[in-house]
Amino acid sequence: MDFDALFTEQLDQLKSEGNYRYFAELERKCGKFPKAANHAEEGVRDVTVWCSNDYLGMGQHPKVIGAMCEAVERTGTGAGGTRNISGTNHDHLLLERELADLHGKEAALLFTSGYVSNWAALSCLGSRLENCVILSDAGNHASMIEGIRHSRATKLIWRHNDVADLEAKLAALPANVPKIVAFESVYSMDGDIAPIREIVEVAEKYGAMTYLDEVHAVGMYGPRGGGVSEREGLADRITLIEGTLGKAFGVVGGYITGSAALCDFIRSFASGFIFTTALPPAVAAAARTSISYLKESKIERAQQRRQVARLRAALDLEGIPHMHNESHIVPVMIGDPVKTRMLADYLMREWDIYVQPINYPTVPKGTERLRFTPSPLHTDADIDHLVNALRVLWKQCALARAVA
Amino acid sequence: MDFDALFTEQLDQLKSEGNYRYFAELERKCGKFPKAANHAEEGVRDVTVWCSNDYLGMGQHPKVIGAMCEAVERTGTGAGGTRNISGTNHDHLLLERELADLHGKEAALLFTSGYVSNWAALSCLGSRLENCVILSDAGNHASMIEGIRHSRATKLIWRHNDVADLEAKLAALPANVPKIVAFESVYSMDGDIAPIREIVEVAEKYGAMTYLDEVHAVGMYGPRGGGVSEREGLADRITLIEGTLGKAFGVVGGYITGSAALCDFIRSFASGFIFTTALPPAVAAAARTSISYLKESKIERAQQRRQVARLRAALDLEGIPHMHNESHIVPVMIGDPVKTRMLADYLMREWDIYVQPINYPTVPKGTERLRFTPSPLHTDADIDHLVNALRVLWKQCALARAVA
Repeated sequence: MDFDALFTEQLDQLKSEGNYRYFAELERKCGKFPKAANHAEEGVRDVTVWCSNDYLGMGQHPKVIGAMCEAVERTGTGAGGTRNISGTNHDHLLLERELADLHGKEAALLFTSGYVSNWAALSCLGSRLENCVILSDAGNHASMIEGIRHSRATKLIWRHNDVADLEAKLAALPANVPKIVAFESVYSMDGDIAPIREIVEVAEKYGAMTYLDEVHAVGMYGPRGGGVSEREGLADRITLIEGTLGKAFGVVGGYITGSAALCDFIRSFASGFIFTTALPPAVAAAARTSISYLKESKIERAQQRRQVARLRAALDLEGIPHMHNESHIVPVMIGDPVKTRMLADYLMREWDIYVQPINYPTVPKGTERLRFTPSPLHTDADIDHLVNALRVLWKQCALARAVA
Repeated sequence: MDFDALFTEQLDQLKSEGNYRYFAELERKCGKFPKAANHAEEGVRDVTVWCSNDYLGMGQHPKVIGAMCEAVERTGTGAGGTRNISGTNHDHLLLERELADLHGKEAALLFTSGYVSNWAALSCLGSRLENCVILSDAGNHASMIEGIRHSRATKLIWRHNDVADLEAKLAALPANVPKIVAFESVYSMDGDIAPIREIVEVAEKYGAMTYLDEVHAVGMYGPRGGGVSEREGLADRITLIEGTLGKAFGVVGGYITGSAALCDFIRSFASGFIFTTALPPAVAAAARTSISYLKESKIERAQQRRQVARLRAALDLEGIPHMHNESHIVPVMIGDPVKTRMLADYLMREWDIYVQPINYPTVPKGTERLRFTPSPLHTDADIDHLVNALRVLWKQCALARAVA
């Protein structure tokens, strides 16, 4: 059987839809963020990255870099095993304590990625709690969807951020069935924020456990970077808070926090936690430094908010439509994969601006977009340059539409 | 609903079976491998680690450490995004080229872990190749099992390493159905090696794709560390070779290699690849250095083989039963979780020897064991000390049995 032909056929289909993905090949350069070198066919050129999830630039913070190198030189480059078989290092436990403290929980558990933490925790909970029903927000991330699917628990999807719909679904379930309400705080593609208080209240009313993904919020929201649940004073009412070390904290890895029994349960039963090599102790040390720094320092969060507001205001001034939301994510909707790619290519080629076209399956077809994530390290000049480029581009598009 | 009570109930069950896991809390110390500090209730003490999967000690190799620190200082601590959205770094592509070369393949694709590479690749292949049947060796790793399960493809389990059984199952399938034969080269818990040539021949006969997990072989087998498939001259006949950067290469991460179309297919469709933050470029740089070093240097492999043979001979001399196999893994079967833990605790407490008791679900119940992995850095004196400890222990056990 010609397997390559089968693969190529499906790839060709992607290409014909405009959904085939071309990765930009970057070279991050310490101290230059948000600038990076872009390796293109025409050569290597510096660009401004406008779509990074290193939201606060902590991945190039001297303290975080220092902590990682110190730990590499002290412990080496890897953990040497699964957490059970020689892979648990003192640095992992220090990080888990830091994370439990961040969310005001008894315990935390580290995973190799945020994806794995969602997938492993939800598949473990859903499969091991008898007759469990998982009520999943319609906008949940792929890692949660796959975890729920893998658990083979009953899944009910409630309308995105719609608490009335959630309540109707909860009310229809028998009282003695374990229920998990799974949702996110900041949704990464639209940048909208869940009505956490209302969701928690409804969940409590029906005795459901709450599972909150804060990956696009930790480090950035709340007085210590504990996420939107910290900002709203709700962390103690949420059963499980999941987060990442790979976005605002600038490293890599994922985690859950909750009661000691909950974390021990996932530790003991989740395949995706048990059967995998632990993160390098040096990654844990770097992440801990980043978290503990952001618990104290508020400058990065304040400056990020300032630059986000500045970008939005400048876009409004030029009449460039963008989705309004309360977060740090600024989506500009295009609605077609081919056009989105053309715009992104043009920004890269003519303006040295890198923003990845966002297409299916990351967003639904027809909602393709450019998604800008201003950081505290984007200067006012960077913002002016971006908005000027978009202004020119929008004018050209209007012209193109007028003569078409 | 009292969720903690539900969790505790299942944890208590584990404890009553003797299957509850206690992680040793180590501090790896550069230059000291296989020694590490063990944090126990009684205090911190140096122990010799006898169960590490940093099989060759590359996680503390000065070149690998140097490469990681250099890259951290050059690029920072994280990738800053998924591979699609700003996370692809020049270092990732260099590593993927190195991996493709290692296995003589057109292309390679990097994942956050070996677990994720198996899970994501198999679930993608199984779900996207219409009517696909996956023929899975009965001894396959949890990550492969979960990937196949997640794909919802038809799964046929063939008896471990039994080519006749595999052929019977292949022969019974219609010719026009896509078939994937999934297996490992070195099985990590028994240390036995698959009859790769026979498997490949049978797969070819029935037009099946071959999926080979070499995680416990890469770096250690073959003239350049390309695994058992390289040693046997069979790599070019295997469709997909999967491996890890977290064991003999001493860092963290996983990968697949194969045709360009195959890797592009997984890159384009596998959820576990698409929706996750890329590995830090510094991890990629460290892994590449380790791989390229082990392509040239043969000392580590030779010395590992010497120390494995030496341990086996010393065990034989003392009449301590161990499973015979052709690999670097030396399992000593105990067959009971409580006894295995007692022996391991005693070795740690009285002899400063750390070997993790291996229990369910890592091995089937009733096959609990101590699993020793001699590295090139275990000295002759380390081996003598271990065998002496086991000798004393076995004598005490015999005495205990005699008076019981």
